[in-house]
Amino acid sequence: MIGYKFMGKAHSHAYRDVSFYFDSEVEPVLQAVCGRNDEGVKEAAEKMGWLSYETDWRKLIARDDIDLIDIVTPNNAHAEMAIAAAEAGKHVFCEKPLAMTLEQARRILEAVEKNGVIHMINHNYRFSPAVQYAKKLIETGRIGKIYHIRASYLQDFIMDPKFPLVWRLDKEICGSGTLGDLAAHSIDLARFLVGEFKEVTGVLETFIKERPLVEDSSGLSGKASEDMTGEVKVDDASLFIARFENGALGTFEATRFAGGNRNGNRFEINGEKGSIRWDAEKMNNLEVYFHDDEPGLQGFRNITCTEDIHPFAGAYWPAGHIIGYEHTFINLIAELLHGISKGISPSPNFHDGVRNQAVLAAIETSSTTKEWISISSLLEER
Amino acid sequence: MIGYKFMGKAHSHAYRDVSFYFDSEVEPVLQAVCGRNDEGVKEAAEKMGWLSYETDWRKLIARDDIDLIDIVTPNNAHAEMAIAAAEAGKHVFCEKPLAMTLEQARRILEAVEKNGVIHMINHNYRFSPAVQYAKKLIETGRIGKIYHIRASYLQDFIMDPKFPLVWRLDKEICGSGTLGDLAAHSIDLARFLVGEFKEVTGVLETFIKERPLVEDSSGLSGKASEDMTGEVKVDDASLFIARFENGALGTFEATRFAGGNRNGNRFEINGEKGSIRWDAEKMNNLEVYFHDDEPGLQGFRNITCTEDIHPFAGAYWPAGHIIGYEHTFINLIAELLHGISKGISPSPNFHDGVRNQAVLAAIETSSTTKEWISISSLLEER
Amino acid sequence: MIGYKFMGKAHSHAYRDVSFYFDSEVEPVLQAVCGRNDEGVKEAAEKMGWLSYETDWRKLIARDDIDLIDIVTPNNAHAEMAIAAAEAGKHVFCEKPLAMTLEQARRILEAVEKNGVIHMINHNYRFSPAVQYAKKLIETGRIGKIYHIRASYLQDFIMDPKFPLVWRLDKEICGSGTLGDLAAHSIDLARFLVGEFKEVTGVLETFIKERPLVEDSSGLSGKASEDMTGEVKVDDASLFIARFENGALGTFEATRFAGGNRNGNRFEINGEKGSIRWDAEKMNNLEVYFHDDEPGLQGFRNITCTEDIHPFAGAYWPAGHIIGYEHTFINLIAELLHGISKGISPSPNFHDGVRNQAVLAAIETSSTTKEWISISSLLEER
Amino acid sequence: MIGYKFMGKAHSHAYRDVSFYFDSEVEPVLQAVCGRNDEGVKEAAEKMGWLSYETDWRKLIARDDIDLIDIVTPNNAHAEMAIAAAEAGKHVFCEKPLAMTLEQARRILEAVEKNGVIHMINHNYRFSPAVQYAKKLIETGRIGKIYHIRASYLQDFIMDPKFPLVWRLDKEICGSGTLGDLAAHSIDLARFLVGEFKEVTGVLETFIKERPLVEDSSGLSGKASEDMTGEVKVDDASLFIARFENGALGTFEATRFAGGNRNGNRFEINGEKGSIRWDAEKMNNLEVYFHDDEPGLQGFRNITCTEDIHPFAGAYWPAGHIIGYEHTFINLIAELLHGISKGISPSPNFHDGVRNQAVLAAIETSSTTKEWISISSLLEER
Repeated sequence: MIGYKFMGKAHSHAYRDVSFYFDSEVEPVLQAVCGRNDEGVKEAAEKMGWLSYETDWRKLIARDDIDLIDIVTPNNAHAEMAIAAAEAGKHVFCEKPLAMTLEQARRILEAVEKNGVIHMINHNYRFSPAVQYAKKLIETGRIGKIYHIRASYLQDFIMDPKFPLVWRLDKEICGSGTLGDLAAHSIDLARFLVGEFKEVTGVLETFIKERPLVEDSSGLSGKASEDMTGEVKVDDASLFIARFENGALGTFEATRFAGGNRNGNRFEINGEKGSIRWDAEKMNNLEVYFHDDEPGLQGFRNITCTEDIHPFAGAYWPAGHIIGYEHTFINLIAELLHGISKGISPSPNFHDGVRNQAVLAAIETSSTTKEWISISSLLEER
Repeated sequence: MIGYKFMGKAHSHAYRDVSFYFDSEVEPVLQAVCGRNDEGVKEAAEKMGWLSYETDWRKLIARDDIDLIDIVTPNNAHAEMAIAAAEAGKHVFCEKPLAMTLEQARRILEAVEKNGVIHMINHNYRFSPAVQYAKKLIETGRIGKIYHIRASYLQDFIMDPKFPLVWRLDKEICGSGTLGDLAAHSIDLARFLVGEFKEVTGVLETFIKERPLVEDSSGLSGKASEDMTGEVKVDDASLFIARFENGALGTFEATRFAGGNRNGNRFEINGEKGSIRWDAEKMNNLEVYFHDDEPGLQGFRNITCTEDIHPFAGAYWPAGHIIGYEHTFINLIAELLHGISKGISPSPNFHDGVRNQAVLAAIETSSTTKEWISISSLLEER
Repeated sequence: MIGYKFMGKAHSHAYRDVSFYFDSEVEPVLQAVCGRNDEGVKEAAEKMGWLSYETDWRKLIARDDIDLIDIVTPNNAHAEMAIAAAEAGKHVFCEKPLAMTLEQARRILEAVEKNGVIHMINHNYRFSPAVQYAKKLIETGRIGKIYHIRASYLQDFIMDPKFPLVWRLDKEICGSGTLGDLAAHSIDLARFLVGEFKEVTGVLETFIKERPLVEDSSGLSGKASEDMTGEVKVDDASLFIARFENGALGTFEATRFAGGNRNGNRFEINGEKGSIRWDAEKMNNLEVYFHDDEPGLQGFRNITCTEDIHPFAGAYWPAGHIIGYEHTFINLIAELLHGISKGISPSPNFHDGVRNQAVLAAIETSSTTKEWISISSLLEER
Repeated sequence: MIGYKFMGKAHSHAYRDVSFYFDSEVEPVLQAVCGRNDEGVKEAAEKMGWLSYETDWRKLIARDDIDLIDIVTPNNAHAEMAIAAAEAGKHVFCEKPLAMTLEQARRILEAVEKNGVIHMINHNYRFSPAVQYAKKLIETGRIGKIYHIRASYLQDFIMDPKFPLVWRLDKEICGSGTLGDLAAHSIDLARFLVGEFKEVTGVLETFIKERPLVEDSSGLSGKASEDMTGEVKVDDASLFIARFENGALGTFEATRFAGGNRNGNRFEINGEKGSIRWDAEKMNNLEVYFHDDEPGLQGFRNITCTEDIHPFAGAYWPAGHIIGYEHTFINLIAELLHGISKGISPSPNFHDGVRNQAVLAAIETSSTTKEWISISSLLEER
């Protein structure tokens, strides 16, 4: 694993925990973690249970005792690392968004395909049992033709203008702000549940244009510098409307300026036969409405997706005993291990990563040109 | 009052009830109701307590014993009636949207201004105590600079493809579908709470393009004809994104294809100091979040706006005893009567109607041109 | 109508409004209102639309032009007035609880029965469309044999120890505190939906034992006296457990010391086939769960009972447009008028009043003796 | 650890996970698990990561390489095992309820005290961050004098009359049904948050009196026998009312017959300054109301207790990223390890177990005698 902060913690825990809950033909061994800071990575390795550590990611990739490279670094490092890992014949699991640009994402996909390694991208929210169950309802025709999705991903952790210009707000490192960090998740959920995007038009906005600089921009907790400020070049909010290939319409909004919404990743889907609602802050619940429910008794059902019938839920606790954020990672890793044992790259993989990146690119372009951008044109042009 | 169906019932009831709850210098007398169908209007007059009725609206307007003309007809009749009423020196209360086009709306406004009559447009949702209280919070700076509004107005009553082509789906009569019927309400709430729209881009969509014709297209309950179908020329859904003059961003969606949402008129506003949420189906409640609440105790408060301190609520029942949809009309009529007694046209009046119409027009245009449309340009051009 | 404060307002409005919404063979005429204070009752008559007023209730009862006596006075006056009205051949509609004691309640029932007049008691919450629909589900076997009801009626308006000793807290006038005011409603809902009580044991408690005296103890808004306090002899809270004749178990709690609950009249019923939840502060909604819903899709449905199929709801607005507290009174009055036209006393009538009073009496006794009290024994003994 | 089913899984996971999230002076080693069935316990040991296993619990206790004995067996085995473990000088962690009888519970307490070992009882719900935060609010006087607690623990997994007579329904093995399994949790929460019980009166009820026998009554999933049924001697529901030493009143209900409630462990507490609500199925959330909130803005705040300021929450994920059922165990084990390192028995320990058992005993007695039972008398008598 390369990187060891927030996502590194979530991934590490999932590797440790997956075999407690799931049977798999392959068992993960936490062989080595890699980071630039010797002391930091050593401490992280001990705390999180990695058997060894490296400070040079190229060395990590070169090691014979490692089969899977997990990239949890900031976005600007994904392409180089993923391609190197693929070329070394390692399977690759990568944080989202796949890359800084569509072109980079394509190169990553080519590398894993050429080298025949397993690849997967971390859109963990898909792996909530409730979302998986929503997918099942849609696939089996219970919702019917889809008319609408409205999705929002609302956070509020950078609303204070004194919140510093940390790496997540650095365009060189992340490429974008809410777009790649939050909207990418909503786009993945939409692609998973509704289908492919046809065209989009949107807006990126930066509400706080100057923020205090931090000496070390490598963490969220960076102390603000009193003396110097820097320009914020990434978006504080991104919103767009979309048409899907199947005729559905979508409204999307991602923002870090929605006070009171700590991690409000939500969607509602309306189809000809029913509707579905989900909210990551109540991730165990799925609200489902059916048109053909008996008159008088029609209303959204609030289902706690903790029963054996709900995908992945049977591995955990009895009905009504909820699971949390970290279990989306455990479920995803179970799927990844299963893929590795079968020789297939489970969804969402780098094909999904490229398509997701195309939507991100289209939104970014439309925000400048104020036009609608066709996704298929973007994907076809080279 | 001209017209006597759904809205006619709501208006009539408000006139009857207003003096029970509110003291006013002027007391409404239900002098006469007007409709084309002699039998229908006679029955409506009796049922709803009107002292007389007319079948020719020009006669109604000509009557000396009438001071206020209330227009609850379909949209295509508003302009002619409102202008005639104004020219006859009557005060005018008109259903929304004000007109079929921005140009018509402007002519109506000119007529009432030239004739010095009181005018008001029926955006009743403003008059929910919770919405009025939200306005107060915003006005007194409790929410701070506004970053976002996301508003949706979701219904589901025409999802069945066999639902007939009633007058509400007739472009000649209504001008638009969800745009003028639903989005107009969200636009009014946004203008009331956030401020003026700067520019918008959006989409109109018709999911069911052919519907059974009805012999009498004058009511929602029209029986479907088995033999003939007609083309639906109005929108089943309208969605758009917006920038406001003050820098806020908005996402908006109105649809009649959101199953399970009977009358889901909702919004959330995020400002630098706090956030507000409201839902017409729980119209007594306002959810409010404040950034400066004590750490650990920050969360949306669910406030039941039924206390004396909440605007209009003191006229009704003790705290916790809720009011309903019809009370938004009673409150609005109380405001209208107050305006008449003072010689002022209370908000929302025809100025608001024109500005609202400009946003509707911009969305419609953008849906065709796929561009962003500036509202101020629309309002300036003639 | 005798009395004209909070309940007088609710009743008056219902008489005025009922014929707007409902067709009835008899039309109410607001002939006369009665109160002891000449000025007060005169003003109330004007405000609420009564054609005349009286200051002596015996005169009111003696009037030839009056068919129905509506008693909205404090509890200690019910018996004398109701009996006098019955003996004068007037129909009687009485506020709950029917009387101060079970013995009084019985005498009232005897009087109306002997004189053959129509009688009804005001348990308005029964007439929420959602509660009526719950009744229908239970009656048609959709919930099956009932195992549990848990009901609470939570308020908070007297939590401040400086809140004065108003008439509602005066044992001479009201007989009890939360017991007759709040628990009586829960008992009625339980009798309506579950069945007859078999036995109960409970507790009455007074948390604030001394309160400021008020000069005029006739209203909630009475100014507190700074100098003198009086002993509070009624209960601030009443709670009890119960067995029903059909084997169901109940837990009940009524209190005016549950901060944040303005008018929290709630219940949940669990039966062998399903469950039902209701809350008066969200009175349009009914939550319903069915055991035989498809596995994976089992969850409480949140139904907005505003459709034609929901009892009484069709008289009002389209689906999703909610009604409020006052509509429970309008519905009840529609039922009363229907009863008068048919010559029957609709439920809940004074038979219900007597049975409700028996449960109240049993709780009061058990609170002293610390024993379980059988309701049938109480009803049989004389 | 003795036992390895549902609770065994939860405990095992917590031991494995605790050092990932928490720093502790002592690190747990999963030395050995014990069960009667050789094959079953072997498989469980492998799956859950125990280094060895035993089939004789006396051997386990005798082992030198074990410091802590964790008892997750059915209730009838607790006393013998806990006493033996204490006498062997092992620390003891025991599932709730502590014992079958108050007398047994006392003997267990005496054994651990005499032998000076650390002891703790598994009331895991206390260790939800939201509940811990509620405790903090109460301790710091934010809620004021407490007037009420109403708690219910509602499940529905045995409603089907064909659900077999598994060990959880066997009086010889469990002692009681909902009382010891569910009500014990509510009693613990009440003791933690409100204070000591003074007296109670209650009811135990068995709705389904005969159930199919199972060959192997050792698991929830036991197949039903078609031929034979047995008498159910434990309670399907237990409900009681209570007075606390500090004057508060409580209503309590535990049932396995509340359809739609999978694991509805809930409470609301009302104090003179505020109120608190919690629900285990939404265990990350705490609803809090304060009387002294600004008029107009009073309402329950919905707080997601996932911030650093919320006890234990800082060990996990960023704000808004929820945790689940299993984390209550991890937090508790962190506390136990801390206790072991400091030489103290953290709450809830066997003192709490004894007091809890006294309340259970009192309810059971009152259900037969139909009287109120004093808890202090029970605790004093021997």
